Amino acid sequence: MVRVMRSDLAEHVAHLRLVDHHVHGAFTVDLDRAEFETHLNEGSPGPVPDWMTQFDSQLGFAIRRFGAPVLDLPAHAPADEYLARRTELGGRAVTERFLRAAGVSEWLVDTGYAADSILDVDGMAAASDGRAHPVVRLESLAEELAAEGVAGQDYADEFGARLEHATRDAVGVKSILAYRAGFDIDLSPPAPHAVADASRRWVDGIEHAPGGPRLVDPVLMRHGLHAAVQLGLPIQIHTGFGDRDLDLHRANPIHLLDFLRTPDVARVPIVLLHCYPYHREAGYLAQAFENVHFDVGLAINHVGVRSTQVVAESLELAPFAKQLYSSDAWGPPELHHLGAVLWRRAMTSVVGRWVEDGDWAADDALRVVDMIGRANALRVYGLG
Amino acid sequence: MVRVMRSDLAEHVAHLRLVDHHVHGAFTVDLDRAEFETHLNEGSPGPVPDWMTQFDSQLGFAIRRFGAPVLDLPAHAPADEYLARRTELGGRAVTERFLRAAGVSEWLVDTGYAADSILDVDGMAAASDGRAHPVVRLESLAEELAAEGVAGQDYADEFGARLEHATRDAVGVKSILAYRAGFDIDLSPPAPHAVADASRRWVDGIEHAPGGPRLVDPVLMRHGLHAAVQLGLPIQIHTGFGDRDLDLHRANPIHLLDFLRTPDVARVPIVLLHCYPYHREAGYLAQAFENVHFDVGLAINHVGVRSTQVVAESLELAPFAKQLYSSDAWGPPELHHLGAVLWRRAMTSVVGRWVEDGDWAADDALRVVDMIGRANALRVYGLG
Amino acid sequence: MVRVMRSDLAEHVAHLRLVDHHVHGAFTVDLDRAEFETHLNEGSPGPVPDWMTQFDSQLGFAIRRFGAPVLDLPAHAPADEYLARRTELGGRAVTERFLRAAGVSEWLVDTGYAADSILDVDGMAAASDGRAHPVVRLESLAEELAAEGVAGQDYADEFGARLEHATRDAVGVKSILAYRAGFDIDLSPPAPHAVADASRRWVDGIEHAPGGPRLVDPVLMRHGLHAAVQLGLPIQIHTGFGDRDLDLHRANPIHLLDFLRTPDVARVPIVLLHCYPYHREAGYLAQAFENVHFDVGLAINHVGVRSTQVVAESLELAPFAKQLYSSDAWGPPELHHLGAVLWRRAMTSVVGRWVEDGDWAADDALRVVDMIGRANALRVYGLG
Repeated sequence: MVRVMRSDLAEHVAHLRLVDHHVHGAFTVDLDRAEFETHLNEGSPGPVPDWMTQFDSQLGFAIRRFGAPVLDLPAHAPADEYLARRTELGGRAVTERFLRAAGVSEWLVDTGYAADSILDVDGMAAASDGRAHPVVRLESLAEELAAEGVAGQDYADEFGARLEHATRDAVGVKSILAYRAGFDIDLSPPAPHAVADASRRWVDGIEHAPGGPRLVDPVLMRHGLHAAVQLGLPIQIHTGFGDRDLDLHRANPIHLLDFLRTPDVARVPIVLLHCYPYHREAGYLAQAFENVHFDVGLAINHVGVRSTQVVAESLELAPFAKQLYSSDAWGPPELHHLGAVLWRRAMTSVVGRWVEDGDWAADDALRVVDMIGRANALRVYGLG
Repeated sequence: MVRVMRSDLAEHVAHLRLVDHHVHGAFTVDLDRAEFETHLNEGSPGPVPDWMTQFDSQLGFAIRRFGAPVLDLPAHAPADEYLARRTELGGRAVTERFLRAAGVSEWLVDTGYAADSILDVDGMAAASDGRAHPVVRLESLAEELAAEGVAGQDYADEFGARLEHATRDAVGVKSILAYRAGFDIDLSPPAPHAVADASRRWVDGIEHAPGGPRLVDPVLMRHGLHAAVQLGLPIQIHTGFGDRDLDLHRANPIHLLDFLRTPDVARVPIVLLHCYPYHREAGYLAQAFENVHFDVGLAINHVGVRSTQVVAESLELAPFAKQLYSSDAWGPPELHHLGAVLWRRAMTSVVGRWVEDGDWAADDALRVVDMIGRANALRVYGLG
Repeated sequence: MVRVMRSDLAEHVAHLRLVDHHVHGAFTVDLDRAEFETHLNEGSPGPVPDWMTQFDSQLGFAIRRFGAPVLDLPAHAPADEYLARRTELGGRAVTERFLRAAGVSEWLVDTGYAADSILDVDGMAAASDGRAHPVVRLESLAEELAAEGVAGQDYADEFGARLEHATRDAVGVKSILAYRAGFDIDLSPPAPHAVADASRRWVDGIEHAPGGPRLVDPVLMRHGLHAAVQLGLPIQIHTGFGDRDLDLHRANPIHLLDFLRTPDVARVPIVLLHCYPYHREAGYLAQAFENVHFDVGLAINHVGVRSTQVVAESLELAPFAKQLYSSDAWGPPELHHLGAVLWRRAMTSVVGRWVEDGDWAADDALRVVDMIGRANALRVYGLG
């Protein structure tokens, strides 16, 4: 009887069409083992030292467990066999297999990072046979302006105009303030003259910046964030772990408290991304502020089998209407697939156990799974 | 055989008369759905947005699971049926049912917050058919003085006299420093002239304070805390999560380290309340300082079925003599009941598993349950 | 079938000869109950208050569970019987029993703390019938110099020479910067004149220092750390919980980020010790930096049966090549044994479950156990 409930839930979760509300493009190119391994490590730019393999990690084990069958290999196929099969099928075919196997109907695609080497929004839709919607990265927009020399009094107007234009087809914006400044700074709207001055200083210094302008000025980041607040679209904010450029403790979303207390900010949906290992703090914010949502994307993939526990920890303080699913995949399409697999597996296991124990009603469980996997994102981003 | 041990433990835990060492009064009024939902969210003042219901949370599910049978409804009754039955029975009857079903023999009642709308200490005793003891909130006492215009040289003497008087029948005092200043400030005893000056500044500004005086001056909060230290009664300190006025990271009890290292402070029992999500830090403090105790109240209710995990995490570094049970319930009597239910459920599950696995002896398990649920509080507060 | 896999794994883990890569000497003296209990509390210097016993803790229960059978007593023997049996056998015999029962082939011994009362490196080898290797504590070396009055321009040269000499037979060095300054300070290499000045100030003040010189000057601690970096041996850094001298939050390894980003530092293995409750942050650093490793020693013992959960949490972000086993035992040889028992128990339970569930391949599980319990330490420290 109880087992019947668990298998009903498993069946339901397995067939739920997810919204992956924060993701990047997938590679379509072939990857050799060294390249592939580098992309299995979020924290380090690589290369992986020769005395170890990045396959010996929760993520590596999870790809061999859940990715191998998508390529017609047995679960846990050795890394070399796995990569040989990948090459045999070719990058494009591999990508289509993984994206379609993910069971995702909508991809919300942040195109702001290393967009040359990965599928764009339309490419994601085509390769996955799903729908894809752009999310505009605020810092990339600012860097575009700086590259064109827009500065001084013109900066704020032009930023506003570009943002308005760029978001006509977008469903939200994203900020990577966590990487460039951290959250433990003044996050109030800067004065117009401060923005003008900061943009002038930035543009004046650009000729010395190899690789193009890179926004690190807190004044301009604050300006971008508050310009987005005025726009009213959902704002995704990277929080928690990422690569080692980031001061992890300064990316704890709890440092956003003063920002979130700002009346203007309270009027737009804020979505805290990733959050690990500060997902309990994120859950607190999602309870305390009506407009705050969060996910545990990225972490789900990187902790592999332990995603069950991380998902369980995310189901504490926050109301269920405030939680979303994302993979935060970038590059290897295994990641786009794995996020969905691990999330389904975790929800089935965690929530299924509560139903078995009589703590949750079975129909509540189905409803919460639908909310977090799909309905909340449709509501927040005004989709469907 | 093993199953016998588990059911013995369950039986024992179910019948243990708890001491709820930190609680507030219960409502006796009827509540409509909007009011009820607002009280299910600790972090936000409400109202709950119309695109969601606060019943869709761990706390909401837990009330439907464990509260509904107390009102003669099936477990998991829908929210509307639940509230209709509540109205049918009437607020007073509902409150008596829940308070009596909690199996609590002693309530230690903080009367310092919104005391008009809830049962007072005697009311709690009567409605629950148990005993109730007051806990004096230090900041409320200071606000009383300020409202009467007591300031300058008189402030410290008068505060001391009032504290002495107010605690004649009290079993302890409580501080909400976490809400008003955070712990990452100088917490040493202030100089007498600084107290006199601060109280004068406060009283001089009161006419401009709508809603009466509100203590936020760190000097006067430090003064109150050290006046309580001199008194020698147990001091409860709110730490960890609460409503969004509070800077959660600055309410991490680890910031109390310097305060706890003060020789005078080492002589009085300090009880860290709630602590989530910093209960591991609290456990460390309870190991490191002979006089430090802690609980995971409030969190137990708000994380619902996940309280098993939070209770398990609280059973790590701290000696078992340093842990206490509380609900931190305020308002809906469901919360006074649920804290007890979830704590019993968590201890039975967590400790029962350890007994089954042979990691703990069965009689040790019974003993630890009695300590945390009852005996430690009786010792700390000098009861019975 | 699945059960066969679990018992195979259990068998394998039980027989694995561990490398305890961070440990101190064991007592060989007899201990009365008060002394013994004091050594069961890492955080407090004691004595244990008379209204409690430190045996009522996870560590105390674990010693009665797993230590008693080593002394021919039934599991969970009462504390008094346990201590009587200890006395009957005598301290030396007890120590040999525990050290040999630990199944450790190599002990990496930090001799820097209270070395008079415990076995030295050779003593550990003899008593355990294993091999033992010294680890040099940087702060102790500095204190040696100061006690001899070495200061000024000579300090850096002499420190370098002593370090070079002391590490001829050592496999690594260790820093307790966490205790003496915390990590949230400038950790760059200090200028030579600053070192000379700081050492002069220190030595000038020593006559007033009871108990000999104690290094607390951040300049000299930074100097020691960077001298060790130049040497190239693995550097162990105490992080996370310890006794109450330590500001726990300032010992969060995440504050080492800037230090770890230093190019010179990236060339030597860094091993973060203990880390609890910040082991997730440590896992992040071990993913993000090729040279960073970590363990959850000390915590394993102190959280007893909960070590299963702590070990599971340590198996998240970090590649498996970056994790090590240690007990961090000091004093009672029960601790040297218990660390190994609890680690084996946790790995068998956690990883065994993953194998049973089909999430990990059985041979991967065996391989990871071998890496963390032994092979990684052999590689990092260049042992056999």
